[in-house]
Amino acid sequence: MSEPKTLGIIGGMGPAATVDLFAKLIAATGAERDQDHLRILIDNNPRVPNRNDAIAGTGPSPGPQLAAAARALQQAGADFLVIACNTAHAFQPDIEAAITIPLVSMIEATADEAAVSGADRVGVLAADGCRGAHLYDRAFEQRGVTALFLDEVQQAEFMHLIFRVKAGDVGVEVQRRMQSLANTLYARGAKAIVAACTEVPLVLSSDALAVPVINSTDALVTRAIAFATGR
Amino acid sequence: MSEPKTLGIIGGMGPAATVDLFAKLIAATGAERDQDHLRILIDNNPRVPNRNDAIAGTGPSPGPQLAAAARALQQAGADFLVIACNTAHAFQPDIEAAITIPLVSMIEATADEAAVSGADRVGVLAADGCRGAHLYDRAFEQRGVTALFLDEVQQAEFMHLIFRVKAGDVGVEVQRRMQSLANTLYARGAKAIVAACTEVPLVLSSDALAVPVINSTDALVTRAIAFATGR
Repeated sequence: MSEPKTLGIIGGMGPAATVDLFAKLIAATGAERDQDHLRILIDNNPRVPNRNDAIAGTGPSPGPQLAAAARALQQAGADFLVIACNTAHAFQPDIEAAITIPLVSMIEATADEAAVSGADRVGVLAADGCRGAHLYDRAFEQRGVTALFLDEVQQAEFMHLIFRVKAGDVGVEVQRRMQSLANTLYARGAKAIVAACTEVPLVLSSDALAVPVINSTDALVTRAIAFATGR
Repeated sequence: MSEPKTLGIIGGMGPAATVDLFAKLIAATGAERDQDHLRILIDNNPRVPNRNDAIAGTGPSPGPQLAAAARALQQAGADFLVIACNTAHAFQPDIEAAITIPLVSMIEATADEAAVSGADRVGVLAADGCRGAHLYDRAFEQRGVTALFLDEVQQAEFMHLIFRVKAGDVGVEVQRRMQSLANTLYARGAKAIVAACTEVPLVLSSDALAVPVINSTDALVTRAIAFATGR
């Protein structure tokens, strides 16, 4: 086997989700000793402007800072990049313009997993900005999968829960309320639920639902390790 | 409050210990929203040569690679650095020669915590290289604390356990055996036990022992956050 590629993570949106991605990458590598693990460079920069506000047109764009982070990760030795935030993929063009290495998309990895699952109708739990930028509906449309989203009132509840997770609350009440939002999509015919925001898997597991949860963090972990190791 | 400093982590030795440090830094920051968290840059490079072999004179030095990582973290915007590995502090001179920003030492943070605890005899669970480089006995001597170490047979068992943790085994058997090594130091009069290897806290908690465990990862987290925020 040739030397595996070095992975760069544009993270910090939020930090707990970046910890989760990092921990899952390490756990999934299945190495016997330090030296068998991947080299991973992380820019955990929680201080980039709010993505949802930028997409709604009510705040500055995080594009320039994300592009700068990407450039610095490439300079530090990353062979390819990932973004530890679904919504931030709305700024993928800014990032790709700043680098000459590949960006492995969490949206594509997750949409592929949804398509492979065979579900024709898939519920998508995504942040306002991720929805506003049409990241998942477009990716699903290309794969012949119908995306179901929360209605306006439910979406407001969803964003409230995401901000509670970001503030460190992953307790049973937040879990129960997230599960109940997922179940409204199931009631509307969703055959799978995509946790399309990296905070969601911190409070929602497949065990809690009647249909499978497709976890965007897990989908990215699988794809990134395959990309790094050429397996 | 002025803008907090950006922290750079020289990590990957091993990766699970770096995840642990990163997770504890995020949890200890106590932020309400992403933007209140620290910016943290991580070079998780598990591919640096084995520190214990280098200190024993049986392998190449990781000094040049650690120095290069430190330089790259400074260039990427780190205002100060930490090393997520006690043993790697043996190469602190190589690292400091490569940078113009401060390196906040895990050894000093931990030794200060041991001294403040009031224990005059402290058991130290440290890897071969950390012992060979005399990192803790010197730091303790300066603070008037007596360091107690495992005997040769126990130390071999300790290294075996550390490598099991690095291979992902944090199960009850490893926990029980680590606890029993800590108890031999307690039996010899240790009034506290220092978890002086970042893998140890993954399998040993204060609850398991009759004396307090001083956790080098926690000591570093407290000091790094204070340094970053000026509090």
